[in-house]
Amino acid sequence: MPNTVKTRSEHVCHGGRVGFYTHQSDVLGLEARFAVFLPPGADAHNPVPVVYVLAGLTCTEETFFIKADALAEAARLGIALVATDTSPRGAGVEGEDADWDFGTGAGFYLDATQDPWRKHYKMGSYISEELPRLAEAHFPLDGTRRGITGHSMGGHGALVHGLRAPQFWKSVSAFAPIVHPTVVPWGVKAFTNYLGPDQATWRAYDAVCLLEDGHSHPAPLLVDQGKADQFLERELQPWHLATAAHNAGQALTLREHEGYDHSYWFVQSFAADHVRHHAAILKA
Amino acid sequence: MPNTVKTRSEHVCHGGRVGFYTHQSDVLGLEARFAVFLPPGADAHNPVPVVYVLAGLTCTEETFFIKADALAEAARLGIALVATDTSPRGAGVEGEDADWDFGTGAGFYLDATQDPWRKHYKMGSYISEELPRLAEAHFPLDGTRRGITGHSMGGHGALVHGLRAPQFWKSVSAFAPIVHPTVVPWGVKAFTNYLGPDQATWRAYDAVCLLEDGHSHPAPLLVDQGKADQFLERELQPWHLATAAHNAGQALTLREHEGYDHSYWFVQSFAADHVRHHAAILKA
Repeated sequence: MPNTVKTRSEHVCHGGRVGFYTHQSDVLGLEARFAVFLPPGADAHNPVPVVYVLAGLTCTEETFFIKADALAEAARLGIALVATDTSPRGAGVEGEDADWDFGTGAGFYLDATQDPWRKHYKMGSYISEELPRLAEAHFPLDGTRRGITGHSMGGHGALVHGLRAPQFWKSVSAFAPIVHPTVVPWGVKAFTNYLGPDQATWRAYDAVCLLEDGHSHPAPLLVDQGKADQFLERELQPWHLATAAHNAGQALTLREHEGYDHSYWFVQSFAADHVRHHAAILKA
Repeated sequence: MPNTVKTRSEHVCHGGRVGFYTHQSDVLGLEARFAVFLPPGADAHNPVPVVYVLAGLTCTEETFFIKADALAEAARLGIALVATDTSPRGAGVEGEDADWDFGTGAGFYLDATQDPWRKHYKMGSYISEELPRLAEAHFPLDGTRRGITGHSMGGHGALVHGLRAPQFWKSVSAFAPIVHPTVVPWGVKAFTNYLGPDQATWRAYDAVCLLEDGHSHPAPLLVDQGKADQFLERELQPWHLATAAHNAGQALTLREHEGYDHSYWFVQSFAADHVRHHAAILKA
């Protein structure tokens, strides 16, 4: 409902406006936070294309806006950004704050099916349904021109949701994504707890498996990856994505960058490219 | 001494490198932190122009690099950036952590003359002597092409040091600076404690007083100020700078921006302009 969004702060930025908001999420059963950047000229008479941004482990709805340096290019190209938090907050599940790579800050953009997580850990439905509905009712965003991107765990979320609903997410990109969570430690830990032991259910939240299982996206996917990323071999393994995309006939631009690590110093180096990638598709 | 710089972390960024360092500061008598961004192509055979960046109250050497979105333009134009901390850390002075606008995080880029502050609170000499000497011995920086900028308290530091040593700092700019600290609450509180009751000694650390007392800079000063800045009337009062510059014949571009507040959402909106301002002077 439009009247449930509370403004935490709003700031003029690059001629547009960045704002931080809370609302009571029905899906999560908790208060949730999100952020919106509106470029100059966005208003009810001129709804603009919008890219949803998903951050990685330990991050929040603030991280990408502060650290990715994407707002200048979004302002220039007339693209709005909506940033979500990375998990429910304050769910009260025992152990949710024990690890940095699971629980709080690590919702993996899926709907948990296992106790005790399934009551609140529903970031899948939150970012694919509730948040777009809410944000697009409240702000001058054009839901017919909607893209998705993210970093690390958020890159996983962007690829998975983009492949699951290509008509909903018309442009897709990712920075250093977890492309194959069903086979890497971060993913196995999260999926075992959130989704349970039946690994067949995991495939719906794994970009490589989705491609193997017949999903694809009509637009080319853009993925940037640092070759000095400290998580490259253990958690990210982008070669699985390259192979699966090739086998599925999925257009993919996978750029590997010498020397770059996993940090936002890497993300900010290529964020403007991603804004242009989304703008080229969404404004075509 | 070159061998005293310890690397905390380094990251490839925009084709260059951002790094965070510590060293034992002789001037401060404590370990100090600083950060350096080197653009692509900077090396011992190609030392590059450098702009020192001073952050505001409560900030650190990380703040401007993370939040100001200046690195892309610095990379493009071949400009290095060096960022300092805002005060000594761990000086152990009673009360230094009591207030957010005085003591830790609030060194005001001056040399304290009063007990108990004068032993460690020497950010004036630190940023005007020790840090440039150290940084320029260690990194491929061209000290003959050196500029200075800053935000809020750091804007005060940039204007004051630029006006005090115009041959040393060849280009000067500021974001929402404290232009006349001798007459505003933040400045009176800091100067009373750091410099003592003799207000004649305060004038050497006040940009407006320096202009009134015959200082000037051969290059035009660039100052950006948000008109919705929450500190505009009480602490910043940029009209004093406009008047003093006019009376002194000092070239000043003071841009006032409707709607912008005091935050880094404001700073990031104009940071690329500042990089271009410095590059135009330093590369002329």
